Amino acid sequence: MLDYAPDLDRVFQALADPGRRLMVERLSRGPASVSELGRPLDISLAAVLQHVQVLEACGLIRSRKLGRTRTCSINPAALRSAESWFTDRRAMVERRLDRLGEYLAETGDKPAPG
Amino acid sequence: MLDYAPDLDRVFQALADPGRRLMVERLSRGPASVSELGRPLDISLAAVLQHVQVLEACGLIRSRKLGRTRTCSINPAALRSAESWFTDRRAMVERRLDRLGEYLAETGDKPAPG
Repeated sequence: MLDYAPDLDRVFQALADPGRRLMVERLSRGPASVSELGRPLDISLAAVLQHVQVLEACGLIRSRKLGRTRTCSINPAALRSAESWFTDRRAMVERRLDRLGEYLAETGDKPAPG
Repeated sequence: MLDYAPDLDRVFQALADPGRRLMVERLSRGPASVSELGRPLDISLAAVLQHVQVLEACGLIRSRKLGRTRTCSINPAALRSAESWFTDRRAMVERRLDRLGEYLAETGDKPAPG
């Protein structure tokens, strides 16, 4: 799971759509059929299926068909990988701001000479 | 800072480009001029400026011009807001999987009757 390397271009592109984010939010609460996923969105079933395909292609969700029903579920590893891109950046920013704070405390908030 | 509501459509759209992600990664290590940001990317200064404008429009970065140099810096609040979208989803998935694990442990991994 840890070495799951997501295609961040496609993951972020997929999540730039509010309808697809709503689908991911729904699936984080548990698996759902395609028609369930489409219910809060006022779009055709064909459009819902297209969104499902985009989410599946970037690895955020999985789906399988049983009889006439396609059931979708979230891929936790893909969610974690995308999250860690932000976590790493944020940790870097915070370390830097902490160091800056320490520096300012040491120098008594006075700019260094020259 | 906590009530910062990012336009996630635009934030994720901005981050769907690997060059722009590289710029955000660079800025998480500290402020940089537009030409510094463009150095690792083999593109024109005009193209770099366009990327900077996209990142600034969605709130991920800020820039200001001093003399002839435009200096960019990261907006930690926007980074945290986008991260929290993932954190909230992941927390939801994990709570659900924990409950499922508890259920399976209680029922001895046997499916419930009926």
